[in-house]
Amino acid sequence: MSDTFIAPDALLQHWQGHRRLTRRVIDAFPEDKLFTFSIGGMRCFGAMALELVSMAEPMVRGVATNTWDTSFDRNAVPKLEILRRWDASTKEIDALWAKIPPARFRETMKAFGQYEGTVHDLVLYVIDNEIHHRGQGTVYLRALGIEPPPFFERQ
Amino acid sequence: MSDTFIAPDALLQHWQGHRRLTRRVIDAFPEDKLFTFSIGGMRCFGAMALELVSMAEPMVRGVATNTWDTSFDRNAVPKLEILRRWDASTKEIDALWAKIPPARFRETMKAFGQYEGTVHDLVLYVIDNEIHHRGQGTVYLRALGIEPPPFFERQ
Repeated sequence: MSDTFIAPDALLQHWQGHRRLTRRVIDAFPEDKLFTFSIGGMRCFGAMALELVSMAEPMVRGVATNTWDTSFDRNAVPKLEILRRWDASTKEIDALWAKIPPARFRETMKAFGQYEGTVHDLVLYVIDNEIHHRGQGTVYLRALGIEPPPFFERQ
Repeated sequence: MSDTFIAPDALLQHWQGHRRLTRRVIDAFPEDKLFTFSIGGMRCFGAMALELVSMAEPMVRGVATNTWDTSFDRNAVPKLEILRRWDASTKEIDALWAKIPPARFRETMKAFGQYEGTVHDLVLYVIDNEIHHRGQGTVYLRALGIEPPPFFERQ
């Protein structure tokens, strides 16, 4: 324990707090803006949200089982369908995380056949990418005249 | 080590990678847009960058020494002055981090006299807040017609 910044369970709780916030940001978008609105030629937030769905549970499954599978489909789907996939992933992430041997986080794996790194860095990349795109989404919301959910609220 | 997601040294390296990227995002802004340009009534990126400076080294100093001190001044300063403070903080964070007893990260502290939490959560809040505002800054850059530095490049 002396060489620990954070334990696996605490990191999962931290991430699930972020996921609750990201879910609220997705839900705050008007249905007709999710796959149409963008700034400066960037992707619409719906496509970013589908990317997040395609990374979170698939990364944890890969780390837990060494089975790597994801989707590159970013075509528009209803907001409720994104939220349904989000909630399903939330449960699956909890279940898969419990199966990861603690020593795994210090091992090197090749995620999705191409991203090689220490497992803790691979997992942090997914979390950081979620925070990054959610931050972008909050600018879209402000530009649409909508106040985003507060960053500090994670329950 | 069995209850470790990531060790303190690895987390610091991960953060310093983020800090190299955030420095590039600050540097990518035109001088005359840092404290003038915004979207949807949000703060300009210069003020966000000063917030990041006011949180990073002061949080690590507080964790290392239990001395809490920060600045709330967000008035415009030249970009080079922000970068100078950024680089000074980068060195100071490394020096202070080395003085943190490893057990400290699991203890509870009250940061800046008001934010109470487990130290690993306090530190992650600072990192996550940096990623969040940097993501917002990349939308500002795109809106200004400037391609942001790539998210995955941390060297």
